[in-house]
Amino acid sequence: MWRATVLSLFPEMFPGALGYSLAGKALKSGMWSLKKVNIRDFSNDKNGKVDDVPFGGGHGMVIKPDVLDMALQSVSNDDGPRIYLSPRGKKFDHQRAKTLSQEKGVVLICGRYEGVDERFLVHNKIEEVSIGDFILSGGELAAQIIMDSVIRLLPNVVAKSEALLDESFETGLLEYPLYTQPRIWKGLEVPEVLLSGDHKKIKLWKTKMSEIITKSKRPDLWTKYIKS
Amino acid sequence: MWRATVLSLFPEMFPGALGYSLAGKALKSGMWSLKKVNIRDFSNDKNGKVDDVPFGGGHGMVIKPDVLDMALQSVSNDDGPRIYLSPRGKKFDHQRAKTLSQEKGVVLICGRYEGVDERFLVHNKIEEVSIGDFILSGGELAAQIIMDSVIRLLPNVVAKSEALLDESFETGLLEYPLYTQPRIWKGLEVPEVLLSGDHKKIKLWKTKMSEIITKSKRPDLWTKYIKS
Repeated sequence: MWRATVLSLFPEMFPGALGYSLAGKALKSGMWSLKKVNIRDFSNDKNGKVDDVPFGGGHGMVIKPDVLDMALQSVSNDDGPRIYLSPRGKKFDHQRAKTLSQEKGVVLICGRYEGVDERFLVHNKIEEVSIGDFILSGGELAAQIIMDSVIRLLPNVVAKSEALLDESFETGLLEYPLYTQPRIWKGLEVPEVLLSGDHKKIKLWKTKMSEIITKSKRPDLWTKYIKS
Repeated sequence: MWRATVLSLFPEMFPGALGYSLAGKALKSGMWSLKKVNIRDFSNDKNGKVDDVPFGGGHGMVIKPDVLDMALQSVSNDDGPRIYLSPRGKKFDHQRAKTLSQEKGVVLICGRYEGVDERFLVHNKIEEVSIGDFILSGGELAAQIIMDSVIRLLPNVVAKSEALLDESFETGLLEYPLYTQPRIWKGLEVPEVLLSGDHKKIKLWKTKMSEIITKSKRPDLWTKYIKS
């Protein structure tokens, strides 16, 4: 079973949205497991202090290296790669989700406040991963994003695994437009080719649309696609 | 008050992680509000059906344009920009979070299953936004990411607004490393300059470190930074 371990000052944030729908059902039926480590449990101070002011001044508080290190030591080496969620990190993407889904699990370390002491990251050779160029109030939602994108790739979570094959990024292209009932809505008709029953023509149309959309919306992906 | 409106088939996923810590406190004290619209309430079918098979074949189900349109019509035009979370969309970033924080709010439309009927997006001129090059099981967690990054920019949510000024992306650079107590941990010392009390020297060190980190970890941001 794929194991997600989260180190957080707010373990009550988990599973959060992942407790419902696809991920929630998969959790209940044992397709993945969730272990929550409360960083505060490893405070060495009677008041449960976990942070302190930054050396050199500046705003906010920094999570102490010793406390975080004790929290990490409570996690088995066998629980998968250790990742600290940080805007400085390597960009997370679909390929990374795929490799993580093939691991035994992942250990996601969530910072809060200003951040964590640099020495904790250096000493433990922690990999830093970013989900995008924006700032969050903590790593918890970024951790949930990573978990969601991995969980749906685990065996049997999505009913038909072929459904994963023609989605965005899998082919290197963005997905073609989708249409369902009613056939005419607000005067807008479903493209005729999709009603033709001609599977070869439909496949060509889908590829063509994927190409047009990728070219116009994501020239960077398009360049990568035509090179490969 | 800044208003977040979410259209979802799983409204119980909200506020999720945003019900705790910084965003949770801000919600309780009325710095932002959350309106949940259950798409299923707008089904025109006695069984509450909201989706159907895609025209032209393919896996998964597609959310019907008429149902989604009725759900959107229940939202005021005054609730802020309407965004559909989609891997095809324009990349969300810190600048976009800033502009959204200056709006009255945002309406976040969350797809599930295979996606939504293209005609709903075209007819309503819905803007598509992506948080990254990965696939989620639905738009809900992406919506929460956008909400979190905006909420922390709202007035008085982060205690000292100056704390927002030297973080990653604000200056165009990634943040410098942080250090706190203890001064020596596992033989690793806090950089001496941070203990010097010389504010000018400390400021120079922070800038230099930000530059080095940005240059090595994000050459793309570095190029943009030196050009500006």
